[in-house]
Amino acid sequence: MYDFEPESVKKFIEENEANKVAVQLPSGLRPYYSEIKKDYDEAGVKALFLTGSCFGACDIADREAETMECDALVHYGHADMGVPTSIPVLYVEAHMEAEPFDVLEKALPELRGSVWGLTTTVQHIDHLYEVKEVLSGEKIKSVIGDPGPRAKYPGQILGCDWGSARSVSGEVDGFIYIGTGEFHPVGIILATGKPVISINPLADDYERTNPELEKFMRKRWAVIAEAKSCQSFGVLVSVKGGQNRMSLAESLSEKLDKQGYDSCILVADDVNTEALRDFQIEAFVNTACPRLAISDEELFDGPVLTPFEAEVLIGDRDWEDYHLNGIGINFEI
Amino acid sequence: MYDFEPESVKKFIEENEANKVAVQLPSGLRPYYSEIKKDYDEAGVKALFLTGSCFGACDIADREAETMECDALVHYGHADMGVPTSIPVLYVEAHMEAEPFDVLEKALPELRGSVWGLTTTVQHIDHLYEVKEVLSGEKIKSVIGDPGPRAKYPGQILGCDWGSARSVSGEVDGFIYIGTGEFHPVGIILATGKPVISINPLADDYERTNPELEKFMRKRWAVIAEAKSCQSFGVLVSVKGGQNRMSLAESLSEKLDKQGYDSCILVADDVNTEALRDFQIEAFVNTACPRLAISDEELFDGPVLTPFEAEVLIGDRDWEDYHLNGIGINFEI
Repeated sequence: MYDFEPESVKKFIEENEANKVAVQLPSGLRPYYSEIKKDYDEAGVKALFLTGSCFGACDIADREAETMECDALVHYGHADMGVPTSIPVLYVEAHMEAEPFDVLEKALPELRGSVWGLTTTVQHIDHLYEVKEVLSGEKIKSVIGDPGPRAKYPGQILGCDWGSARSVSGEVDGFIYIGTGEFHPVGIILATGKPVISINPLADDYERTNPELEKFMRKRWAVIAEAKSCQSFGVLVSVKGGQNRMSLAESLSEKLDKQGYDSCILVADDVNTEALRDFQIEAFVNTACPRLAISDEELFDGPVLTPFEAEVLIGDRDWEDYHLNGIGINFEI
Repeated sequence: MYDFEPESVKKFIEENEANKVAVQLPSGLRPYYSEIKKDYDEAGVKALFLTGSCFGACDIADREAETMECDALVHYGHADMGVPTSIPVLYVEAHMEAEPFDVLEKALPELRGSVWGLTTTVQHIDHLYEVKEVLSGEKIKSVIGDPGPRAKYPGQILGCDWGSARSVSGEVDGFIYIGTGEFHPVGIILATGKPVISINPLADDYERTNPELEKFMRKRWAVIAEAKSCQSFGVLVSVKGGQNRMSLAESLSEKLDKQGYDSCILVADDVNTEALRDFQIEAFVNTACPRLAISDEELFDGPVLTPFEAEVLIGDRDWEDYHLNGIGINFEI
């Protein structure tokens, strides 16, 4: 089902003369650990399986690997986003072999007469140009945008980088997303305001999601209003290599204090909302993974603001400037 | 309620010329973050509050602190157990001011005519010799044992070091435990086979817990029997400074493989049983915090063995040698 690139793994081990290798797998790939372990056994090296989070290529466990005296780390399931690491890291992207063409065929009637932007995650990137060809054969126009700052491939999107969708947003009527889950289609809609048709290669049918931006904006406005009546703020900052925005967190904390709020900086690896509860803090500003404020907000005890929203609260930015792509604002590190 | 030692904190900051200090608090102390923050504000340094686990002095977040460019770490609530760290660490033991004498008085009728070993955790260590004096005034004999390898004070016990109880076990009829929670009284019973009277300074009454060792041993035997019928084993090893027993984990993994089981090494910071589930592994051997196998066993999908029990399974040790203090066996790092 997945390509675990045994040859690249062996070459990487040889090139780095590794004896002990840490292996980082996202949840969905953990059931394959035994198949993956064989590649390391055959190369005669010890594989240590890390059980912590593996949310993306922003979440590189090089510190854990070093602590366990590993010479190298192999990170599966995500494309390199250029996060600097303390030991050599190989990214095995684990492209999925399942093809999207049967589901695409079912969606054809919905696609005719419009221009589509094609987007996907790295697992399905191999099929993106083939989808373009199939559409072209059906006389359906499509475009593939250039990758944003954190993506590697044209058309690739991440939960914190919708650049490839934004870059072609002006030329299309909507987006085709190849992949699973709801978070990415919602992200594309928030970033572009266009509808999304999801083609899940493992599903029987496609799904169409239309923008509900007003509802989203009302919700965000309510979150800011709720935060205004709070006194204590925790500014969340992540230790994860690709999510660590300490200087942004420090600057927001200072601005909040100047406005008369009481803020403190809260450092997290995985953000554990149960652990945050113990601090009895009223509101949060999130500088870590954007998912936390946008889709995990209900797990927190109080309102959770994006950096942009915190600046609206402080008075440094106008609500009217809240473009929907403002979600990603300041997220570059 | 607690002594947060502001003077020691300020001296530590000055001595280390620290500009940015990471602060590590166990759950129970997190509601006091604002009171604690004042000491850092007054010293003119930035305090970063770490939200990860703080289970004991085995669980030192020096790596996180370094990643966040802190010059030093202040760890609250636990006594130094000598774990080497990469940056300067101050242990603020946060002794509790609440006194145990009212509850002790209620327990007096139960205590007469026997000899008692006195045990406690670091929070209540200030009152241990006063309790001895009160008992002495009532003509009740008591002894305080020397600290074990990971403890700092006479009479102090930890979830992985009952040495101070064991050292006087032969001379006493039971133990008085000053503190909260059930885990420590149960640990004392398992390590010594003697009853425990718990004096919780925050409670209205004392509690007596009697040994149920046979039940415990039957349960452990059943866990080993269940593991015998499993094929895949995960040997758990922790990245936490005071819990990292990699060489023990590697040796157990090799022995399991030689006996025809399939084992792999699973590296965890906090052991997340939800994350382990993804691997679809049948049984576990725990080389990290002893609590995992002894009191959190039901959170795992399969049987969890202690290192000693894994060696019984392999045939390297005899079940008959399973002294109850065998729980702690091999736990020295």
